[in-house]
Amino acid sequence: MNDTVRNDGPPIASPADSFPITPRNRVRRKPDRGRFDKATVYDIMDGAMVAHIAYVIDGQPYCTPTGFWREGDRLYWHGSTASRMIRAQAKGLPVCVTATHLDAIVLARSGFHHSVNYRSVMAYGTTRLVDDPAEKAAALDGFVDRFFPGRSREIRKATEQEAKATTFIAMEMVEASGKIRATHVADDEADYALPVWAARIPVAQILGDADPCPRQLPGIPVPPSMQIYRPGRRLDEVLQEAARMGYAAE
Amino acid sequence: MNDTVRNDGPPIASPADSFPITPRNRVRRKPDRGRFDKATVYDIMDGAMVAHIAYVIDGQPYCTPTGFWREGDRLYWHGSTASRMIRAQAKGLPVCVTATHLDAIVLARSGFHHSVNYRSVMAYGTTRLVDDPAEKAAALDGFVDRFFPGRSREIRKATEQEAKATTFIAMEMVEASGKIRATHVADDEADYALPVWAARIPVAQILGDADPCPRQLPGIPVPPSMQIYRPGRRLDEVLQEAARMGYAAE
Repeated sequence: MNDTVRNDGPPIASPADSFPITPRNRVRRKPDRGRFDKATVYDIMDGAMVAHIAYVIDGQPYCTPTGFWREGDRLYWHGSTASRMIRAQAKGLPVCVTATHLDAIVLARSGFHHSVNYRSVMAYGTTRLVDDPAEKAAALDGFVDRFFPGRSREIRKATEQEAKATTFIAMEMVEASGKIRATHVADDEADYALPVWAARIPVAQILGDADPCPRQLPGIPVPPSMQIYRPGRRLDEVLQEAARMGYAAE
Repeated sequence: MNDTVRNDGPPIASPADSFPITPRNRVRRKPDRGRFDKATVYDIMDGAMVAHIAYVIDGQPYCTPTGFWREGDRLYWHGSTASRMIRAQAKGLPVCVTATHLDAIVLARSGFHHSVNYRSVMAYGTTRLVDDPAEKAAALDGFVDRFFPGRSREIRKATEQEAKATTFIAMEMVEASGKIRATHVADDEADYALPVWAARIPVAQILGDADPCPRQLPGIPVPPSMQIYRPGRRLDEVLQEAARMGYAAE
């Protein structure tokens, strides 16, 4: 069981810096892996560039990988104004937005205890069309600057036509739950005596060398917005660093 | 538009080695990125250890990251018999199972053309409880051997109690669509003249050095099942190689 928050049963008072625990978001399986404090939930979300969004159209669930970002308890994503997902979500749909990091493969001495280390957040809310002009203008820069701090000032500005073709969706995280496994092999006590190779193999999303556009003008240096994207770095750590730089909120 | 398959409109005859294209799975946005041939869909799925599964309970969509594997057009995953997701899916639920690989970050000269390279599959079907004893016995080994070919013979066998505590869910992929972006920066023609740094930064899930269990008996070599998990390799390529080794089907 989680030490800091109760993890069983409906609407429970929670500290202000935590998400409420409800029948929807409580972590039923392996509740010791549950995390409801906002610092942890934010950190897991901020480490991801792509989330998976579950939504329902005509009774059919869809699970669509989507670039997204967070400002406070609010998530944003965007898409073509013509997209089926975006058109449906613009009307207001219940969704579940999930960000997941695979951190290690855990090889135990029995199949039952094979596992992976991971960090994930499932966030619940209802979608909303971003139709306020100021919020939309901020989002047009925000979805660039959140990932590449300051880059919106280094590139061509969005045209009116581009803005029209782009729809932004917002979702307040009314509930969210993080789940983390970050331990080592956890075998049944008797099994440690078995002559079986058991190990944890780390996995991370790693950045490679930037491959410049073949039509790049000569002599253009790597701009300030991209300094944190050094080859060999972990993408989740770069994205968390970008989020802390806070450009999206400006 | 896709050269090999028509990509607009409902129920269309498809080649035997492709998934049918229907209103549910056709790729509406950027249809040139759509892939319906089974070889491509299989390859994208086989490169992933974790998929995101969208399903609905009491009108609420959920998006749960889940380890899974494929045998032909059938997907398998498992969970605790007590899990809410597993209990709901055991009764037969429409789901969408999505596997996604982030391959590169694409930095264009305008915000509008910023993108990512990716490979994803969205697969649709209805879940089914694996209750046939032979199918379940095969799955208990399969979910180990599919990832680590032959490992089920290197570890302790599942006990009856473990088998009872584990529920396997199967889903026939009745429809599936792959989507791939694998190109470089694609800017508006006029923008190539701008003095903006534009590049593609590769991203891949990379394996680290195996960290043995602290209680590992001395002198146990890395077993045959784990030879392909060499540090520095891409996880998706290792998993595709494991899938081609075909242990899951034995």
